[in-house]
Amino acid sequence: MTTAVKSSTRERLLEAAATLTYRDGVGIGVEALCKAAGVSKRSLYQLFESKDELLAASLGECASAFAAGLLPVADDGRSPRERILHVFEQLEGQASAPEFQGCRYLAAQMGLKDQSHPASQVAHRVKENLTAFFRAEAEQGEASHPDLLARQLILVFDGASARAGIGADKLTGLVTPTVTTLLDAAGMH
Amino acid sequence: MTTAVKSSTRERLLEAAATLTYRDGVGIGVEALCKAAGVSKRSLYQLFESKDELLAASLGECASAFAAGLLPVADDGRSPRERILHVFEQLEGQASAPEFQGCRYLAAQMGLKDQSHPASQVAHRVKENLTAFFRAEAEQGEASHPDLLARQLILVFDGASARAGIGADKLTGLVTPTVTTLLDAAGMH
Repeated sequence: MTTAVKSSTRERLLEAAATLTYRDGVGIGVEALCKAAGVSKRSLYQLFESKDELLAASLGECASAFAAGLLPVADDGRSPRERILHVFEQLEGQASAPEFQGCRYLAAQMGLKDQSHPASQVAHRVKENLTAFFRAEAEQGEASHPDLLARQLILVFDGASARAGIGADKLTGLVTPTVTTLLDAAGMH
Repeated sequence: MTTAVKSSTRERLLEAAATLTYRDGVGIGVEALCKAAGVSKRSLYQLFESKDELLAASLGECASAFAAGLLPVADDGRSPRERILHVFEQLEGQASAPEFQGCRYLAAQMGLKDQSHPASQVAHRVKENLTAFFRAEAEQGEASHPDLLARQLILVFDGASARAGIGADKLTGLVTPTVTTLLDAAGMH
């Protein structure tokens, strides 16, 4: 019984942290987090060492949904080129939602401005996994310089997320032609 | 005499706002701003309607230095292609400084998460000016789709600034080849 209650308190805190930091930024206060989760500060500090640890855990919890929302399923029979383009089609679709605020991992790292922060480290790892996906597909598709192509693709991903997140661009007719040009230049036909 | 003192107080506030928001983010408090500027809250509110207005004014003050640090001088005799590449060479140089935290305008917009905020509006205009420079050079250089190329270039600019700002990439061997590929694809030789 106690365990079930504790688990639910933890989940409510993780969900509140995910929702509020995405909407309002990593500067969100402990009081606001507790209020949104409907838990006491005491409960928060029983479950997490600090707000920093709660943010890090929350970003970690979102990682599988982030990957599932972007990556194609393994061995789907499509070419590496198509599998890379899939990620950007997904991003373009997500960016069209009115509540889209850009990539939560980029936003957290930019907001924290501290690479040693536990939440920055989680964010860094999640984005490294996306870069690793690009690199693996680039190698599979015999790109001329797989490492360069992977760096280019994550740069376009972050630039596109950021610009859509601030409402500066809707990405339509932008991301697919850009990625296509980079794939062509790398010889990934 | 009074005017001179007032002007200096204003400058100190603008400088503190520029320095602290760049280093710590737009969530920086009024107390910290006043302390860094060495002025009272009363003085701040005599000069600016709100912290939001101070942030907006501070971003506006930085706009000419931002443009001067990136854009080539007018009529320098170089081709539009070279003039566009100049911006990215400047960015790469700036990104190598240890205190580089990315583009202050993108960071402000991402941190504020509110397009109607006066500081977001200033940031939006400053970046629109950079996009307009790209578009004008693209037209001058007879790019096949000047508007698309301008959107691609500002996307690369923001992606590169963001990734260098969070320490995820040093941009060396990345930005120039990427921009070159996009210029080539647009027929800007």
